[in-house]
Amino acid sequence: MTTTKPKQDYEPNVVLANTHYDVVGTRPIRHDGADKVTGRAYYGADFPKTSPLHGKVLRSPHAHARIKSIDTSKAEALEGVKAVVTGKDLPDAGDDQGLRWRRNNILAGGKALYQGHAIAAVAATSPHVAEDAIELIEVDYEVLPGVFSAREAMKEGAPLLHDDLYADVGGAKAEKPGNVASYYKLEQGDIEKGFAEADVIVEGEFSCPTIHQGYIEPHPCTVLWNEDGRVMVWCSTQGGFLVRDRTADILGVPVSQVKVMTQEIGGGFGGKTEIYIEPVAALLSKKSGSPVKIVMSRREVFEATGPTCASYVKAKLGATKDGKMVACQSYLAYDAGAYPGALVICGTMCIFAAYDIPNQMSEGYDVVVNKPKSAAYRAPGAPNATFASEQLVDQLAEKLGMEPIELRLANAAMEGTRRIDGPINPRIGSIEIMEAIKSHPHYTSPLEGPNRGRGVGLGFWFNIGEPSACTISVNDDGTINLLEGSADIGGTRASIAMQAAEVLGIRAEDVNPAVVDTDSIGFTAQSDGSRTTFATGLAAYEAAQSVRKQMIERAARLWEVEEGTIQYEKGVVSSKSDPELKMTFQELAGRAREVGGPVVGSASVNPSGIGGSYAGAIADVEVDPETGKVELLRYTAFQDAGKAVHPSYVEGQMQGGAVQGIGWSLNEEYYYSNGDFTNSSFLDYRMPTSLDLPMIDTVIVECPNPGHPYGVRGVGEASIVPPIAVIANAIHKAIGVRLTSTPMNPGAVTDALQRQDGGNGSS
Amino acid sequence: MTTTKPKQDYEPNVVLANTHYDVVGTRPIRHDGADKVTGRAYYGADFPKTSPLHGKVLRSPHAHARIKSIDTSKAEALEGVKAVVTGKDLPDAGDDQGLRWRRNNILAGGKALYQGHAIAAVAATSPHVAEDAIELIEVDYEVLPGVFSAREAMKEGAPLLHDDLYADVGGAKAEKPGNVASYYKLEQGDIEKGFAEADVIVEGEFSCPTIHQGYIEPHPCTVLWNEDGRVMVWCSTQGGFLVRDRTADILGVPVSQVKVMTQEIGGGFGGKTEIYIEPVAALLSKKSGSPVKIVMSRREVFEATGPTCASYVKAKLGATKDGKMVACQSYLAYDAGAYPGALVICGTMCIFAAYDIPNQMSEGYDVVVNKPKSAAYRAPGAPNATFASEQLVDQLAEKLGMEPIELRLANAAMEGTRRIDGPINPRIGSIEIMEAIKSHPHYTSPLEGPNRGRGVGLGFWFNIGEPSACTISVNDDGTINLLEGSADIGGTRASIAMQAAEVLGIRAEDVNPAVVDTDSIGFTAQSDGSRTTFATGLAAYEAAQSVRKQMIERAARLWEVEEGTIQYEKGVVSSKSDPELKMTFQELAGRAREVGGPVVGSASVNPSGIGGSYAGAIADVEVDPETGKVELLRYTAFQDAGKAVHPSYVEGQMQGGAVQGIGWSLNEEYYYSNGDFTNSSFLDYRMPTSLDLPMIDTVIVECPNPGHPYGVRGVGEASIVPPIAVIANAIHKAIGVRLTSTPMNPGAVTDALQRQDGGNGSS
Repeated sequence: MTTTKPKQDYEPNVVLANTHYDVVGTRPIRHDGADKVTGRAYYGADFPKTSPLHGKVLRSPHAHARIKSIDTSKAEALEGVKAVVTGKDLPDAGDDQGLRWRRNNILAGGKALYQGHAIAAVAATSPHVAEDAIELIEVDYEVLPGVFSAREAMKEGAPLLHDDLYADVGGAKAEKPGNVASYYKLEQGDIEKGFAEADVIVEGEFSCPTIHQGYIEPHPCTVLWNEDGRVMVWCSTQGGFLVRDRTADILGVPVSQVKVMTQEIGGGFGGKTEIYIEPVAALLSKKSGSPVKIVMSRREVFEATGPTCASYVKAKLGATKDGKMVACQSYLAYDAGAYPGALVICGTMCIFAAYDIPNQMSEGYDVVVNKPKSAAYRAPGAPNATFASEQLVDQLAEKLGMEPIELRLANAAMEGTRRIDGPINPRIGSIEIMEAIKSHPHYTSPLEGPNRGRGVGLGFWFNIGEPSACTISVNDDGTINLLEGSADIGGTRASIAMQAAEVLGIRAEDVNPAVVDTDSIGFTAQSDGSRTTFATGLAAYEAAQSVRKQMIERAARLWEVEEGTIQYEKGVVSSKSDPELKMTFQELAGRAREVGGPVVGSASVNPSGIGGSYAGAIADVEVDPETGKVELLRYTAFQDAGKAVHPSYVEGQMQGGAVQGIGWSLNEEYYYSNGDFTNSSFLDYRMPTSLDLPMIDTVIVECPNPGHPYGVRGVGEASIVPPIAVIANAIHKAIGVRLTSTPMNPGAVTDALQRQDGGNGSS
Repeated sequence: MTTTKPKQDYEPNVVLANTHYDVVGTRPIRHDGADKVTGRAYYGADFPKTSPLHGKVLRSPHAHARIKSIDTSKAEALEGVKAVVTGKDLPDAGDDQGLRWRRNNILAGGKALYQGHAIAAVAATSPHVAEDAIELIEVDYEVLPGVFSAREAMKEGAPLLHDDLYADVGGAKAEKPGNVASYYKLEQGDIEKGFAEADVIVEGEFSCPTIHQGYIEPHPCTVLWNEDGRVMVWCSTQGGFLVRDRTADILGVPVSQVKVMTQEIGGGFGGKTEIYIEPVAALLSKKSGSPVKIVMSRREVFEATGPTCASYVKAKLGATKDGKMVACQSYLAYDAGAYPGALVICGTMCIFAAYDIPNQMSEGYDVVVNKPKSAAYRAPGAPNATFASEQLVDQLAEKLGMEPIELRLANAAMEGTRRIDGPINPRIGSIEIMEAIKSHPHYTSPLEGPNRGRGVGLGFWFNIGEPSACTISVNDDGTINLLEGSADIGGTRASIAMQAAEVLGIRAEDVNPAVVDTDSIGFTAQSDGSRTTFATGLAAYEAAQSVRKQMIERAARLWEVEEGTIQYEKGVVSSKSDPELKMTFQELAGRAREVGGPVVGSASVNPSGIGGSYAGAIADVEVDPETGKVELLRYTAFQDAGKAVHPSYVEGQMQGGAVQGIGWSLNEEYYYSNGDFTNSSFLDYRMPTSLDLPMIDTVIVECPNPGHPYGVRGVGEASIVPPIAVIANAIHKAIGVRLTSTPMNPGAVTDALQRQDGGNGSS
């Protein structure tokens, strides 16, 4: 047939248009071919779509075990089972150690490295059949001793997770394998000289256990590995492109072969910046030929996603007797989980970042342990570090006989202060935060009654930039459609849309923002690092500027005048000289197509000028000395938002950060008993509820970020940094004991009181 | 709570960032709010989506009837029925006659104007309940006499469809209402003088009944009228924006309140450039609060969508005895269906457009009749008109004793010929088509045997431009994502992608094109008028040029050289002077983010320089004089594609157009018996199958369109223009009788033979 086999006699037989094209004039297979020939293309009547297979994952009951064999034959034989996969179904990583580890975390290789580590998975016609099937998979484990904390794991003779992990500590690669994955050292000035100048030195050791972000929505995904090789992923994530790129990496396919349709997200807080089940569902889909859906249980979320690092921090701070901080030193050892992480670096950067201290040194160790690989959690690593530093500052104030907030004010990092990691602070809101605390009625009101105390503290988070893209198209009715690739985890559809509206002089309601799939927008980094309103907002700003420019061009063409004679202000395009020539954005939008195609503006950014955020907090507590229960009486969060684009959502972020910090302070931990993680349910892993909390009051401080046209700073993270230390400081004020570990729960408080009183209690 | 009620005391209480913003810093409701508070937001685990309600439409059994009353109470009382709507649920159009008619075609107003006219609709928990419910709706009709052809409807005393339709015929509005909706008159030169110069004049009357596009997929839609006022539409259409704008028009809401998710389309051919059920489903959704799905039956498609016009054409053509055409005149009266249409104008434009005739006049009447409102069908109006003109040209050749193709060649319209509607032809492929026919083995081979005949003929279709937008984003792996708003009805994802690939020097397979929803791309007109590969291809070309320019900028930044020193050829970016500086598009794509944000290019066009398309055909037939059956022995289609971007798909369009023209010629018609449409099923409405057809051979002629950078012309329509006349010419050659009405089915052929033989048959 001539449609498939060109007839050379006649084609092209009369006029040669141009024989030099490389693509035009060739006969590639149509892009929609696979969907159509396999019956997968969605036609109008196919909505809603049909059901997928259901996947379940078999997980290791052991924290550390060699996998001697896996027998999937009984599972495969079960009626309704369509595919079974194990780590062997992932491509071989060859010599690429990092890639091997990333793949092994998705489906275990030779060893299970934590309780909950994925070993195999099944796709079946129902979730129940899949559950039955995973129980039929026989795994022969050789159970190995585990190690559950960074300090234990660093000891000589500790069980080794990886026999090929040779850390680079202090500039040289270790001679034998160990559990230390990375070592970081940041310094400025001369700490020996600094401490020599100090009249007063305080020091201490502080630790936090592993805790989880506790998002309500467990990880879900549906994946179709299509006949044309494309992997279609519907999932919940903080970043569609992150899922795209990491899924491609794990599966060993080019990134453009993966398409991610980001759905609404039921909480992430950093925990949805990693992937777990998407490549598993992809492998099951490839084997079965069907879309496969996997939804984690709560237990799986706790056991097998990325909680934040447990931490050990030893720190020292020195000041002159007139209250000038002159030196600080810290040593941080963070649990990476089963594979190397990178969060300890954030702790080393942030620990004393709120202060201008001339001599600093901070060392960080990233250490693998038999726990799930840690992931980001709201300002990751900084609360752990600040738990140490802000208690030391309080101790210092006490020794110096200064008001804690005055000591902080006297030593605040400011515009021009160089941070330990190198950058010099641009305009930042440290002083403004402390002034706001000092003048706030919460701070100035008395706190009366026994066993009550008030704590204050600061925190810093540096925020990030990273690439974002936006596309705006103008509708005839004067509204705009705004495409973005940023998962909306905190109201950013609104805060990004508002920046575009501001440029164009239209209402927020006239913008229709949509978070679209990874095929439909330029690369956009995930929503984390408090970057979204800042960076994607900047992309929206730039795209709107492009639209604004085009609207001026259209008006010039309509009016047959020079563009230079036209002004655009507050949504009105008008002639600078002729008062008759005037149209609103809406009016012009309705006529723009008369003088050209549709008006569309795209922009992409990869901004510098990020602007970190300072946060402060005041907390009042009352401690029951009998039970050790700490009741939070009042809490006020202060944060520098740069310019708060949507103040309600900024307040929501501040309240959310504060509450998560409060839960961390008082309640939360991964509880291990003989290496067994025993509280992997919301009933046992006790997060605070509204009944546990007072109203979280908020004060937005607006100290514009010079790196953004509206002065925006990211606000999603900084407010989780202070509360742990602030509550510890308040407890110390209330009952005179200083707690150095979280959670500061009744047991910990009564233990501390007993230690203080020689075991006789305080009542 | 402070998140909902701003605390004026503290906000902003320290530093005022900028008090002059209009939007930034305010507290609008988040854009995703409605979906989230109503439980409609889709989270990862919600895929696939839940089921909608099912809608069914009650349709008029009468072609013309006054609706005295509609009682929906029994239907509403049926268990499972969630909503019932009638025309009263649409907003009042006030004095806007056109709007009233558009709404009345969706749900009837005071009268039913055709059999199948929508009267009421029901949404229920299952399609079966909805079907039961519509039978419970009681409609009291006063049946009126109907009128079923344009010529009958134009007669004095004919039943009137609209008592307020006053046509503007010849420059003055009619004094009393009638059925003529519009009158068009095109002319150039002086036909009186022209016919006076003619030595030979031929004339005739030609007619075609109503026929349908016959797409396989009946119209489907699912609509959700969301709590935030947005109307979400999933449907099958040739244009998402068309559905958006027309649904908004019918419902009386701004266009941006409607979002259309275009699905794959199971055929359209012009028939899916109108809407029918989307506003009905929207009203049902609003009333029920649920998404509502309506899928038409085949009978509904035939009765209540838009077939193409029935036509009456009277035409006259004069030439000098040496074969120079000097004058032509035509009178066209086309059925509009129940409401005014605009297709007859296309007939008046195209009827003699293949020829350069100095004196021309063409008049067209658009006439309302009691049939469904006609819609576009592949080169709408042109095949009906060409059925007349190309038979007259054959008759003229016979009278002049010339070879038909030589007569055509001698009079061909060329570059520079002014068309009757005004434009002067740019470079066009008329001569080239005829030369290709003359030199083709089909033409040069003898046709032997009794009752066999060979026909030739030409056709012209002007094609259209209209707005299109494309957005391209570059992936790290050197592929690109290409967004477009053009429904893909003939392989245009490929043909548009290939133009972008050409610009960038990458493979077609490196482009990932997607047809996206109306929120996700700039306004793009529907896929009709053979515009998509031309106009949306041009938008892709321009977007790719933007990407190309940005890639040069990125290379300049990476290499730290001036942009002007860089060249981009065949997908390779390199320094003009330094041979070390060289990267492929793929390599540069992987590094582009190092020196800026993601690379994204958008473009929108509203092109002129459209370039019409010429088509020609040769058909061999054998007629059985006993039965009157015409067997098509061989058929070759010739078409000017400008540059054929993807030759296979061009050939597919040519074959498709030819086959639809062949069905029109030999088989198809809306058969009315006493005003009852009696063949509204695929069994009775006989479309040709592969068993009825020979291989349709194709010859692509490439005569580049100067209005497109690759010389592209639209190819979707022209090949349906010639076949009806070509087959009539072939039948005439075979058996000596000339058929002037379609379908030229056995009954028509035997009747014609009997008329010729005085009723004795020809055997």
